[in-house]
Amino acid sequence: MNSFLYNAPTKVYFGQNSEEKLTEIISESGYKCVLVHYGCGSAVKSGLIKRVKWALEHAGVKIVELGGVMPNPRLSLVYEGIKLCLSEHVDFILAVGGGSVIDSAKAIGMGAAGGGDVWDYYEEKRTPEKTLPVGVVLTVAAAGSEMSKSSVITNDYTQVKRGRNAELSRPVFAVLNPELTVSVPPYPTACGCADIFMHTLERYLNRGENLEVTDRMAEALMTTVIEASKKVCRKPDDLKARAELMWAGSLSHNGLMSCGTDGGDWCTHSLGHEISALYDAAHGASLTAVWGAWARYVYKNCLSRFHKFAVQVMGVRPNGTREELALKGIEACVEWFASMGLPTSIRALGVNPSADDLKLMAKKWAENNGGEKGSCKKIKESDALAIYTAAL
Amino acid sequence: MNSFLYNAPTKVYFGQNSEEKLTEIISESGYKCVLVHYGCGSAVKSGLIKRVKWALEHAGVKIVELGGVMPNPRLSLVYEGIKLCLSEHVDFILAVGGGSVIDSAKAIGMGAAGGGDVWDYYEEKRTPEKTLPVGVVLTVAAAGSEMSKSSVITNDYTQVKRGRNAELSRPVFAVLNPELTVSVPPYPTACGCADIFMHTLERYLNRGENLEVTDRMAEALMTTVIEASKKVCRKPDDLKARAELMWAGSLSHNGLMSCGTDGGDWCTHSLGHEISALYDAAHGASLTAVWGAWARYVYKNCLSRFHKFAVQVMGVRPNGTREELALKGIEACVEWFASMGLPTSIRALGVNPSADDLKLMAKKWAENNGGEKGSCKKIKESDALAIYTAAL
Repeated sequence: MNSFLYNAPTKVYFGQNSEEKLTEIISESGYKCVLVHYGCGSAVKSGLIKRVKWALEHAGVKIVELGGVMPNPRLSLVYEGIKLCLSEHVDFILAVGGGSVIDSAKAIGMGAAGGGDVWDYYEEKRTPEKTLPVGVVLTVAAAGSEMSKSSVITNDYTQVKRGRNAELSRPVFAVLNPELTVSVPPYPTACGCADIFMHTLERYLNRGENLEVTDRMAEALMTTVIEASKKVCRKPDDLKARAELMWAGSLSHNGLMSCGTDGGDWCTHSLGHEISALYDAAHGASLTAVWGAWARYVYKNCLSRFHKFAVQVMGVRPNGTREELALKGIEACVEWFASMGLPTSIRALGVNPSADDLKLMAKKWAENNGGEKGSCKKIKESDALAIYTAAL
Repeated sequence: MNSFLYNAPTKVYFGQNSEEKLTEIISESGYKCVLVHYGCGSAVKSGLIKRVKWALEHAGVKIVELGGVMPNPRLSLVYEGIKLCLSEHVDFILAVGGGSVIDSAKAIGMGAAGGGDVWDYYEEKRTPEKTLPVGVVLTVAAAGSEMSKSSVITNDYTQVKRGRNAELSRPVFAVLNPELTVSVPPYPTACGCADIFMHTLERYLNRGENLEVTDRMAEALMTTVIEASKKVCRKPDDLKARAELMWAGSLSHNGLMSCGTDGGDWCTHSLGHEISALYDAAHGASLTAVWGAWARYVYKNCLSRFHKFAVQVMGVRPNGTREELALKGIEACVEWFASMGLPTSIRALGVNPSADDLKLMAKKWAENNGGEKGSCKKIKESDALAIYTAAL
């Protein structure tokens, strides 16, 4: 049995029009100056930012704004946000958007409260000890950052993408209104489905002795995501399916799916990070591009889990050897990715890396992961290169 | 889609020897005087209280003690605890035990911080606005009170048993060491299994439009409890099965299993409360004594959910009409209760109520539930009497 700490303090307000609760939430909290942090367009165009500001104005707080967060959020904007927080005496950050906006807000919060260079935290040179509190109005079901302790920032000066886990980074509240996700176009919706699924699968595929209840809940979540993704592909305004994806997204990354495991594998995420750092690919797409190659490379080292995944999640009929079934499960999963229009190879991302590019990614991967990583199979730089090559 | 608030801030320290973390937890918190609250024997005999006090002494806090909590915890002891907290300037309550001890601690916390008569909260005459913080070292996997917002107290002056939900009652931390539950004897272990299962089932059996992910996780949890209960019956020191039950117990009642539902039915709990208020029966046993009769009385009004329960949880083969399958599911569940040595009728509790006693219970049930209750079927006093009579 593995010990664990479970800490998911984020208060979730789930349901239609739940962003209307912001006035009450912020009034009760006693904050005085709120930084409203958002992305590059849709939340502005849809009128959501206007509605959020209206709700905050009625809570009697001063509002400071910083838009312009891009996918794979950049350190330069984080620095800008920190300066703004310090000059305007911001005491609360409200992230209105998806994972990139929330991650950027978390970095700003740590940087503004902690002093010094916030990038030190991402390079593990310092441990964050305080942060400005962060709240969320979620507009994309994907990253799960609304309840998670993690944030991923791209250093746009060095092209290094790094994640940081810190319990204090968990948002204090998250407003989850599935209606806000109905207008998300098909491709980012599919990327989101893949991301939610992978957050669960990275934890599920491991060589530790799991708690059965955790495993079964992970299977429940992944099965739901596959089903809901099909509904949303057919009918983008299927509000019930959007609601399933939204709640599954939060649960997939708040720690619940790790309880009792060895923590999970996380190689697909780290391999994907190097792809999107170099080519600015969408996070979910970078995962599906490399997962099949990774899975075929490691499954024999973790056969019982891959077998269980095939039967319990991918619905493979249990006729055949464990190895045959495990492989069928991998292929079924890759087919599901493809059926959503997601890339299942690196070139399908629209890029064409040379042999030297692959070597560079493998080298950076090794540098950023202390030389080795993985639970199903501990892989090293040479393995990473073999996986990138197979995924080409 | 039903809106919901999800708020489960309790920090869980799960694993072997996790009570050793108490020194660190309490040191960091800055509390100065801790009331150690416990039951009638086993935690003292096993040496756990001694170990807990040792850990607290090393955290440098003053310790005040109040033992003697009985199953179906009593208001008189709660009053005593409140007096003690006020006279000794207690700023934190540590509940060491199961649901009764934790519920008693929650009531003491509200009473000490809120002033006035704490019973007012249970009679819904006042809304609690503050509490002393409560932490938990859990010794029985059953009530789920370690993460829940609810507490149930028996007024031993009037023989009324009342529950109170309050978000502020959620414990700030819970130390969950499954080893501490290995010595729980077979009957309370079985009662605990039934309680965990019923906390999930009360939420699952409802007429609202559920989130699929919630339903599937509830099925995952119930399936795990059935499996683990069989293992623990065969081998009481099966630590892995004890761990499954312990974590399932916390998740069954922290709100996760309600997300997106209409809140659930809760008639079995309320019917059971009247039985244990009158006869001091164990909570879990009071539930199994009445559940079958309730289920047979209401299942036709909620056929799709009972059908799903039969197939997905009780493993009934899907051959037959929905009604036949629903009934088979009910019988399979009642058989599982019986297989653990739990009562499946009121008389099996070792009591023999007269017709007048049943009428009195139904009358009290109606008084305590505003005249009607339920989601599968809204029942009234006459229905309650019919169910008690069928359950005799």
